[in-house]
Parts: sequence; structure tokens; C-alpha cells
Amino acid sequence: MKELSVVVVVADGLGDRPVPSLGMKTPLEVVDFSPIADILSKSSIGLWDPIQPGTRPGSDTAHLALFGINPLSNYPGRGPFEAIGAGATLRPGDVAFRGNFATVSEDLVVVDRRAGRKILEAKQLVEYLNKNIGEIDGARVEIYHATEHRVAVVFRGGNLSDAVSDTDPHVEGVRVPEVAPLTSSEPAARMARIVNVFTRRVHELLKEHPANVRRSESGLPPANIILLRGAGMMVKYPKLQERRELKLEKAVAISATALVKGVCALLGFETVTPEGATGGVDSDLMAKARAAVEYYRRGYDLIYVHVKGTDAASHDGNPEAKVAVIERVLKAVSYVVDRVDLGKTVVAFLGDHTTPVTIRDHTSDPVPVMLYAPGVMADGFTKLSERDARRGSLGRLRNAELFGVLMDYSSRVEKFGA
Amino acid sequence: MKELSVVVVVADGLGDRPVPSLGMKTPLEVVDFSPIADILSKSSIGLWDPIQPGTRPGSDTAHLALFGINPLSNYPGRGPFEAIGAGATLRPGDVAFRGNFATVSEDLVVVDRRAGRKILEAKQLVEYLNKNIGEIDGARVEIYHATEHRVAVVFRGGNLSDAVSDTDPHVEGVRVPEVAPLTSSEPAARMARIVNVFTRRVHELLKEHPANVRRSESGLPPANIILLRGAGMMVKYPKLQERRELKLEKAVAISATALVKGVCALLGFETVTPEGATGGVDSDLMAKARAAVEYYRRGYDLIYVHVKGTDAASHDGNPEAKVAVIERVLKAVSYVVDRVDLGKTVVAFLGDHTTPVTIRDHTSDPVPVMLYAPGVMADGFTKLSERDARRGSLGRLRNAELFGVLMDYSSRVEKFGA
Repeated sequence: MKELSVVVVVADGLGDRPVPSLGMKTPLEVVDFSPIADILSKSSIGLWDPIQPGTRPGSDTAHLALFGINPLSNYPGRGPFEAIGAGATLRPGDVAFRGNFATVSEDLVVVDRRAGRKILEAKQLVEYLNKNIGEIDGARVEIYHATEHRVAVVFRGGNLSDAVSDTDPHVEGVRVPEVAPLTSSEPAARMARIVNVFTRRVHELLKEHPANVRRSESGLPPANIILLRGAGMMVKYPKLQERRELKLEKAVAISATALVKGVCALLGFETVTPEGATGGVDSDLMAKARAAVEYYRRGYDLIYVHVKGTDAASHDGNPEAKVAVIERVLKAVSYVVDRVDLGKTVVAFLGDHTTPVTIRDHTSDPVPVMLYAPGVMADGFTKLSERDARRGSLGRLRNAELFGVLMDYSSRVEKFGA
Repeated sequence: MKELSVVVVVADGLGDRPVPSLGMKTPLEVVDFSPIADILSKSSIGLWDPIQPGTRPGSDTAHLALFGINPLSNYPGRGPFEAIGAGATLRPGDVAFRGNFATVSEDLVVVDRRAGRKILEAKQLVEYLNKNIGEIDGARVEIYHATEHRVAVVFRGGNLSDAVSDTDPHVEGVRVPEVAPLTSSEPAARMARIVNVFTRRVHELLKEHPANVRRSESGLPPANIILLRGAGMMVKYPKLQERRELKLEKAVAISATALVKGVCALLGFETVTPEGATGGVDSDLMAKARAAVEYYRRGYDLIYVHVKGTDAASHDGNPEAKVAVIERVLKAVSYVVDRVDLGKTVVAFLGDHTTPVTIRDHTSDPVPVMLYAPGVMADGFTKLSERDARRGSLGRLRNAELFGVLMDYSSRVEKFGA
């Protein structure tokens, strides 16, 4: 059997729960599926637990699983992925922390763990720190601004360790603690020394910074320290091209979301953000669809299209916006489907996790999946809802299994056994 | 999202198989569900495999899984849990055995592995041994009577090991074997010496005991030794409050069953037995319901109600009694449901395992689950049977997954990832 091309379209946070303002229907139960009704009726449908039932996925862990890596056994914690989401390119061995700009008193007692949360000067302060901190004990330090008060801090060089405690005391009114090594190894001791120097140096640089002087004068809490938590050492993930059981060379991820692009890059995807694609609800989804078709025509084996707007609408708690974004996604899917050879292509449409608009956060509910492939069991559904998906031929898959099924239908996976 | 309260009601051994005397219906298919029909119709239903399909759960392993601990990877064997069920409070490092009162000849050949099984003097003999054995080689010895000829024996103090053989030869007509260490470690050697001294001392104390003299005179086999098997070293379980991914502080378990209370206590629950609650089919279930409401009103995060009577009826092979107990449980559930705020509460009703009345023992059949939460997918069922449960939105969950789902719906669990 000749290998088939694979097109995967993810509407981030697609799944949902019944919504009062939609008459206790879910957004998917309200959506007009007519743009993809034909291919849907020829597809198998089912449910996917990105991690496992009862475990709330992050976007990073869900994407690792989506592309065949079980994050339950290979995930270094949030620090490195927060850094990736903020634009860092990490190498195995780098140690990254999640961090907050915070406000401390002169004797380093934490007054506000988030320095007022809205810090308009955050980017400027991060740039200033990156210019002035440089190396500590042979380790390069890079700070990345995420959102509001949130940053990620990456340490790189020599033998480092993530076995150190936090500088974030997690409560206010106490002194910023010295970091302690959590094992007796030399790298842990070194890492603790480096982080303690980092913390003092950040405070020295920030406390007299003009932006903070202005903040104090305006009655705002100065962002005069960075508190770190959740150290994680970046691991090595096998790239798709290196996985011996797979026959897969050229993969592209079309996304405007730094975290998704970062995860995909780790796994061997080229990453592309077409002009007009923003990651918001107003993103130009047709630009993504056109890019997908272009890469399809260039002979890519795996074309991944990621749309963030559904998740954004979910986090905003806006069911009508979610319905509207899903309908725009379906038009983009339809555009792609009309331009690929369905005799030689596997097409999947799904969510990376569920984000109910009523909860406004990721939950562990399984996500609906549509899987088209030549010769797949056609379930005959013309809509794809959470309820319908329970009754489809795919059943309920979990974690890396879904990727296995995609690779199976595209004849890109070796037999396990003789 | 604000965290919700969680109320879990377990009818022990709830699930069943078709019963001839019920016209090949299961007890749940005969039960009058009207007391909870309303909340049931607003709930998701499904199946839960307490351990995994094909594995018969114990009450201990089922309860570990129910509260999020996978017993397949963290269970020390039955010894410690038999001791807990018999009233012991164990600490990590204690070594416990299951034991039998048995009858041996003068040269220690096993004549009756159960000393006639019914041993009216068992409690008295256990007390006598506990008074007279004391310490052996620095280890304290505690014997607990379970039922009939069954006991549990706990050793505590210093470095012990569960890597020792049994003194129970598992057959009659052979000499009681000396215990041998199963590894070359010093703790295993010490444990073997202690157990060998224990066995000799028990025999010395029992063989001339007046109760045994009387038994012999009445033609009953004297209970003149304790045979040990299944050594297990107690492990440390994380308490609910210590699990970093959970936001859960105050938990209470309302039960009259020592094993269930013991497991719950290990996991950080307060345990309560209301007056009138007996663990039998005649238990005062409304007393448990009132206690549940009281703890709910006091702001507990997780309120667990355990009813043993369903399992007792099942072990008795009495389907009519099982139906009657289930109907009493439903009234108790209804009492609680009427008194909690369903806008802020997760309510689950399920079994801890299946005990078919035709088998009179636990089986691996999955158990039906009702899960109500604000905004949960309403499946619209007004009965909860083994057959119905297969068609519900919850699907089929296994082991610790169900607890994850409960914690997810109550917004008490952290995201795994970024």
C-alpha cells in the first residue's frame, strides 16, 4: 500500500458541554456542518482523550500526544513549555522556570506576587534584564515575557539541574526564599547558586529602573523582582523523521500560536504562520487553508493546521463567538477538502482538548474526532457533536493512540511484530 | 471557576448479573429508581472498571482507585489491608501477614489449617497472645482477629522486610515450615528470625491454654498455632491534601466498615460512623444521609458515604434483599440531594465493585456510575442499570480515571501542562 498524505485540522478547545444560552446544547450541536457534511458522512467519528480520562490537558501535552508522544512518561513540567510558548527555542539540558514579575519590599518581603498583574512596561523590563544580566557562573540566562506579569526564564550551559526549590513563596507577606538544591548532586548545587545570584541581580537591576520609579510615583506596585517556580529540564523528543516505526519525512505545522509552533518544531515539523493568521477569533483562516493546500501540492506527508480562535472564544466564555469560529473553520476545512485527492489523502478534524465556555478553561472531557481515509468505515453522520461522537466507529481513543490510527490509515507505520 | 463540593455515595457491590429468580433481570433492573429519577435524568451515566477489565477488585483496591490511587502500581498485598480491616492502624514500614488459627500435632504437623473454622474463643486467644508475646528482637507484635479462624499479624519496629516465605504450608499433613528470607538483605534475615520466634512462642502459649484444653476435651481441634502467609510492607500513600495537582482540603468518609474507614483514613479522610450505622443490611442509612448533609453544611470539600448492605446481601446470594437495600440507599441519596445546592455540587452514585448474587463474591464486571454536576451532559436516563450504563456519556472509565473526572467536574484539579 502506498503511503497517503495526511491533513490534520485542529480547532483548539473544540469540545464543550451543554450551554444554557444555547438551550443546553453544545456549540457543536448548534453549528451548521453543511460545508463538510459530505466528507463527514464518509468518515469514521469518535472520541479522543488527549491524555487520559480525568486529566486536564495543556496545549503542550495535548499536542505531544496528538503527534504520538505520551506526555505522561516524557514531560519535563511546565517551565520549558511556558518558555517555548513565549518564543524560546530550547535544547535538551536547558532548565526553564515559570516566573512572575512581583513586588517586594526593601528587605525582600513579597508584597504583591503579581506586581499588580497589568504591567505595561513588562517587555521593556525584560529587554533591560536580558541586556544586563548576561551569564551567571557560565550559564546563559534568557528571560521571555509571556502575558501580563508572567515570564519564563531559561538557563543554558554546563551541567544544570531542575532539582531546585522555588523562589516564589506562593504566598505574600514572607521573604523571598533562597533556592535550595533538592538533591545532593553538584549540578543541583550549581543551579541553586545560579538562581540565587539571578534573583539578587534582577532585584538590583529593577529596583531603581525608571519604569518602576514611575510606577511607584503613580501608586502602582513596582515590578522589582522575578519569582521563579516549577523548574524543568528540557528533554529530547524524537522527531517524526527519527521514529523508526514511521515512514514520514516532510511535515508542516500551520499555526499562529507560539506554543503550538514550538512543540511542533521540537517534533520535526516546519512551522509556518501565513500572513493574516493571528491566533485570535479574527484570524484569517482561509490564509491557513490556502497554505495547507500549497504544502499538500508540494508533496508534504503531514500537513497540520491549527486554529486557536475556538479556544480563545471558549476562554472568553462566549458560546456565540465559538459557534461562529467553528463555522469559519469548517469553511476552511471544506476549502482544503475540495482541493486534495480524497483517494490518496487522510483528513482528520478534531480538537486538541475540550474548553467548555461555561468553565473557561481546559477540561478533561474527550474531544470529538472526524477521520476520513479512503476505505474508512463510513459512519454516515452529517454533524459532529460530543454526543454523536460516542457512537462512531473510532470508539474512544486516548493519548498517542490517535496518532497511531492516523499513521495506520496513511500506511506510514510499521507492523509491531512479525 | 470556583471549586464545587463533591458528594460520593457508594453502594458496596452494587453491580450484578442477570438473576434467575428476578426473571433474568439484575437487581438494578428491578429497583424502583423514582426517589432519584430527577437527578439521574440530569446526570451523565457510564461504567467504571475499579481496577481494569478482568481484574476482580478487593474493597481496599477498589477504594484506593476510587480516590485516585492506582493500586496496580502501589499496593503492598493483602496482609496490611487485612490488618486495617481488622482494626489496625498501620504506618509505612510495618509488615503485616494474613494468618489462620490452625491445629498442629506435637511435632508441628498441620492437622487442620483452620482449627475447625468456627473458633468461639478466637478473640480471647488473640488477647492472651497480645498480652504475652510483646516484642521479638526489638519488633512489636500485634495480632488482630478478623473473622472465624482468620487473623492479621503486624510487626513494627526497626528495619523489617516483607521478603520472607510463609509459615502456612497451604496443605495439611506436613510440618510447619521455618520461614526463610527471600532476599539476602539483613532486614529479610531479621524478619525471618522474628517470624520463626513468633511461631514457636504462639504455639508454646496456645498449646496449654485452657480454651484449647476444653476444645480438645469437647472433640474440637485446638487452635494451637497461627499460620502466616502473604507478608506485605505498608507503603506511604499521599493524602488528598498532599497531592499537588488537587485543590482539596476537608474530606470525610461516612462508613461502618473498618477496611473502608482504614483506607479512607490513609488517604486523608476524617472517618465517621453515625450511631445506628452497622455495615449490615439493617444499617440505619438515613443516619448516614443526615451525617452527609451535616458535613456538607460544614463546608467539607469531599463527602463520601459508604453503604455495605448491598454487598452483604450479595455475599448472602439474596437478590430480594439486595433490591431492598438498594431502594433504601436511593432514599438516602434522595435525602442528601434534596438538601445540597445542585448549582454548586457534584454528586456521584455508584458501586465500588460488582458482587453478583449468583456468584456471591466480587467479580470484575464494571459498575454503573451516575455523575451529576452543574452543566454535565444530561443523558436523560431515569434508571441506572448495567445495560443502560453502557450507553451513557461517561463512557467506560477505569481505575483512578473516575476520580480524575470527579475532580475535573468540581474544578479541583490542575491542568497537566501549559
